[in-house]
Amino acid sequence: MHYGYLNGTVRPVDELNIGITDLSLLRGYGLFDYFLTYNGRPFQWDWYWERFQNSAAGLRLPLPMSKDETYAVVMDLIGRAGGADVAFRFVLTGGYSADSISIGQPNLLIMTEDIHPVPGVQYEAGIRVMLDEYVRDMAEIKSTDYKRVILKALDIRAAGASDLLYHKDGEISELSRSNFFLVKGNTLVTPNRHILRGITRRTVIELAKPDFVVHERPVLLSELQDADEAFTTSSTKRVLPIVQVGDLTIGDGQVGPKSRFLLQRFDELVAKW
Amino acid sequence: MHYGYLNGTVRPVDELNIGITDLSLLRGYGLFDYFLTYNGRPFQWDWYWERFQNSAAGLRLPLPMSKDETYAVVMDLIGRAGGADVAFRFVLTGGYSADSISIGQPNLLIMTEDIHPVPGVQYEAGIRVMLDEYVRDMAEIKSTDYKRVILKALDIRAAGASDLLYHKDGEISELSRSNFFLVKGNTLVTPNRHILRGITRRTVIELAKPDFVVHERPVLLSELQDADEAFTTSSTKRVLPIVQVGDLTIGDGQVGPKSRFLLQRFDELVAKW
Repeated sequence: MHYGYLNGTVRPVDELNIGITDLSLLRGYGLFDYFLTYNGRPFQWDWYWERFQNSAAGLRLPLPMSKDETYAVVMDLIGRAGGADVAFRFVLTGGYSADSISIGQPNLLIMTEDIHPVPGVQYEAGIRVMLDEYVRDMAEIKSTDYKRVILKALDIRAAGASDLLYHKDGEISELSRSNFFLVKGNTLVTPNRHILRGITRRTVIELAKPDFVVHERPVLLSELQDADEAFTTSSTKRVLPIVQVGDLTIGDGQVGPKSRFLLQRFDELVAKW
Repeated sequence: MHYGYLNGTVRPVDELNIGITDLSLLRGYGLFDYFLTYNGRPFQWDWYWERFQNSAAGLRLPLPMSKDETYAVVMDLIGRAGGADVAFRFVLTGGYSADSISIGQPNLLIMTEDIHPVPGVQYEAGIRVMLDEYVRDMAEIKSTDYKRVILKALDIRAAGASDLLYHKDGEISELSRSNFFLVKGNTLVTPNRHILRGITRRTVIELAKPDFVVHERPVLLSELQDADEAFTTSSTKRVLPIVQVGDLTIGDGQVGPKSRFLLQRFDELVAKW
């Protein structure tokens, strides 16, 4: 069973409630973060905490707890989750609003969830993604705004695709919930603007450095044409190969050796986390 | 005291809670509507209900109640509110999500709130608005996404302004929570795309028809230069004159006779509602 923490109370997730005047409900004013545990320990805790702090500052919401206090809650919830590794979701909201528009005292929610692993076949065959001409507003803040991809879920499935790749003015930014990389020879290229800076992205860049040249820079849609490989990174997806973008086949349409290599390096890291 | 309705339960607003796995909280997936009562009756109920239905269809959320059932709830809540006219807020959410991303059974919240009238001085002196280069994603759906204006509230106040006027590629769309009109002679011009179609906007267009030519069409920023007057419309603002946009003074910087006339027509309509 999963437990959650809300403003000092710990209860089973399905018994936790929030008042209806919270600004996340009324005005979509909230941010979140999401990470996994490996071997019972939060993965890259320092980096996630840093990002959570940055998102909170970006939405001008003061954090109600220190890093150490929050870590104690995390470890308590891990203890209650029963032994298996879990996903953590943090949500920080604009709080209860007296006039339905002004920010109140932020509500902090911390909960565990089951990990929903990507089916193994997607690592073997790679995924297809649909192009979507869009750029997330305030992409660098991990806000709760996911209307677009939820609304398009049916279209994505109907197209036999797994996700959206956002682009605007000929420039690629990110997938709906993950980052994007191209491989060309021994070079990795990944967008550096209009994106959420993923922790898995950062981890993969670190892991790649001994063997690759890594360029973080604006990436053009046209660069897809002569890429050898492409992949996406997120907590849940790790290093997930992309073999088709819209109508365009990436490389030879097969999962490539560089993507496999980086996935293997990532799995080695988390195995001994 | 204000009461709210949530999925069959009616309680005081501050005793109503929603589970933390609701998609409005986790993913900003929700829509709302907002209207006032005059003389104890919901203003333009048919039009609000039609828009609420359209927003729900736009986010692919089935409505859990019929129009008549909803109206009965509205009248019940009016009865509980103690006699004064009230504001109504409807919120329809993506529901409780098993995996934090897939839509569930929508939760419908209906609540009354105090009306927060615009200070009378703003009708006498007019308001200033800041320009903001932005266009709302899915503006035609009354989604709960108001991060941008909440985040900019401090900047707006610091600039001595009351609101943001959104524009993109030289074209005006709307204010953060209200529609926009220009007056030139006996012509009213109001944007017809990238906007939420306001019920007050619709009402004012109807009221204006005997005395004005009304053009609903794309409106350029450059048209501000030689406008006689400008105003904004919303449930709460009614017909609120705008005398300055960014650094530009509209007309002679005073509230103009056409804006006053339309406000008066509006007030006459609601007085006998």
